[in-house]
Amino acid sequence: MKDNLNMVPFVSVENMMRLVLDIGIETAMEGIAGYIEDDFRRWPLFDKTPRVASHSQDGVIELMPTSDGIDYGFKYVNGHPKNMREGLQTVTAFGLLASVDTGYPVLLSEMTVLTALRTAATSAVATKYLARKGASCLALIGNGAQSEFQALALKRICAITSVRLYDADRAATRKCARNLEGSELEVVECATPQQALEGADVVTTCTADKQYATILSDNMVGAGLHINGIGGDCPGKTEIHRDILLRSDIYVEYPPQTRIEGEIQQLEADHPVKELWQVLTGEIEGRANEQAITLFDGVGFAIEDFSALRWLRDALETSDRYDELDMIADPDDPRDLYGMLLRERARMG
Amino acid sequence: MKDNLNMVPFVSVENMMRLVLDIGIETAMEGIAGYIEDDFRRWPLFDKTPRVASHSQDGVIELMPTSDGIDYGFKYVNGHPKNMREGLQTVTAFGLLASVDTGYPVLLSEMTVLTALRTAATSAVATKYLARKGASCLALIGNGAQSEFQALALKRICAITSVRLYDADRAATRKCARNLEGSELEVVECATPQQALEGADVVTTCTADKQYATILSDNMVGAGLHINGIGGDCPGKTEIHRDILLRSDIYVEYPPQTRIEGEIQQLEADHPVKELWQVLTGEIEGRANEQAITLFDGVGFAIEDFSALRWLRDALETSDRYDELDMIADPDDPRDLYGMLLRERARMG
Repeated sequence: MKDNLNMVPFVSVENMMRLVLDIGIETAMEGIAGYIEDDFRRWPLFDKTPRVASHSQDGVIELMPTSDGIDYGFKYVNGHPKNMREGLQTVTAFGLLASVDTGYPVLLSEMTVLTALRTAATSAVATKYLARKGASCLALIGNGAQSEFQALALKRICAITSVRLYDADRAATRKCARNLEGSELEVVECATPQQALEGADVVTTCTADKQYATILSDNMVGAGLHINGIGGDCPGKTEIHRDILLRSDIYVEYPPQTRIEGEIQQLEADHPVKELWQVLTGEIEGRANEQAITLFDGVGFAIEDFSALRWLRDALETSDRYDELDMIADPDDPRDLYGMLLRERARMG
Repeated sequence: MKDNLNMVPFVSVENMMRLVLDIGIETAMEGIAGYIEDDFRRWPLFDKTPRVASHSQDGVIELMPTSDGIDYGFKYVNGHPKNMREGLQTVTAFGLLASVDTGYPVLLSEMTVLTALRTAATSAVATKYLARKGASCLALIGNGAQSEFQALALKRICAITSVRLYDADRAATRKCARNLEGSELEVVECATPQQALEGADVVTTCTADKQYATILSDNMVGAGLHINGIGGDCPGKTEIHRDILLRSDIYVEYPPQTRIEGEIQQLEADHPVKELWQVLTGEIEGRANEQAITLFDGVGFAIEDFSALRWLRDALETSDRYDELDMIADPDDPRDLYGMLLRERARMG
């Protein structure tokens, strides 16, 4: 993409949108899902750490680093539920990829849009490996910023053909249904969560309240369902009743992080959970039978962002949807940083 | 500076050089030193953590976050000693400031140049509080990328009037002396470290080898000297003989980090050290008497970068040396990220 190491390619929000639209939104998520599958299959070689969080009264700012020994990546992400009331994004994010060999950054990108894509792609990977064969109907509880991406990723990657929408705010459901017009999905707007669950093979919960809420209660969940629990992703924020957890086979990304942030924060610290990557490698079995309830307790892990950034870097090989940032000082002699300033002064005159 | 929260001001390397030259290099370091002093005086209220490091065979990539409850900052920095052989920078860095209230980034900046300034400013703050009154002669052992900044910061902030240079590479000493021409400093090029130390009140060691090296040996250090040990800043990299450490009153930034990375990694884990910030607040005494040897075992701490970024943000209030990056997605309705993509598609036609 470039020879000039001190210039770092930067993907703005506008360029990200245009790149994704060039490629196609569903095709982009399918591409990212492929990178996630590849990285989950080589999970043990990653440098893993729980996210580094700075909590405040109104929210949290986090850094999520990881490395496969060749590339290093991290994401900056905040979570401020009160932002929405002020017309701001609850979550904003950007990320960086660097070369482990030199330590030089090689890609900087917005990651609000990219995170939405990778979150849906991750749910689709989990659903592909854990839902019943022939699953075709998705219930979407929570019709906010993540909902359309979930619907389209599961359509493309898991052959979902119909979506049943519910949100406590009817306007959100309307917005989601409108956005999915022309997607070839059959869309049903539902008045209650119970109604949304009727006939569903898969349910994704992606609500945004920062509190212990019970979006899914025990009587709503029948045998054979696969659940993607996406919205419960920080301490004190859950969506699914504890009794459902106790009836489910639970799959997670990185247990040390999920036990703090996921639905399983409601359970004992030693409650058995399975790691999704091991299903992909075949080390452990996925769904046991047609009757089992499977739960992917997704909180979002650094490796998924790393996969998304790798996908992006490779996509930019054949696209010019980026700018170059003069981010790395490049003196002619590395020991003469001061001389670089003197030469700039001479140029300024 | 701006009303449009989704646009993030970005200071490129070129803009950083021009801003610093507009202000004056010494004045910039004096300004940064003021912010460092302010932040050291309110040290206990900072969210502190040792840096988050990802080590590899050839180097390390680190994230250094901190927050004062109002602003959040972090720096990305690598250290790859072998880079110099390939014509690359050993250390590159960039940093970010964000609002704790909203989680939105408010400033992105190159930090290779800025780190050089803040490192010298920090040494100057330590020297101001720890060196003998009337100190006027600085020995500089190691005449690489940090050396000129040390000389000029200590000239401006600590009234140093003469500098004695030594480097194992004579070309580096020549380069440093040439760069300091016209600075009003008396500059003496020395053939040995011993010669450089003759008559010095203060010595700064800032060499770059990643190994246990003894740049300063015991017989070279006389009573009353203040030492800034700057180059020993990672595990396995030290510059100063253990016997000198045992004769010195040792001051550090953040003990949990310095015991791993600083000169004191050569000492027992419970060897007594003092925290520099407490000298600034008056909680503890600085130099005990004219005979004491004082050592600032500086490794670089996140709060200094935070101070430098605060200085930069304030300097940009009256400067246009920045660009604006479209880094934060800003849908009209925060719950409608997908709709933002659809509208972009409509615009693309």
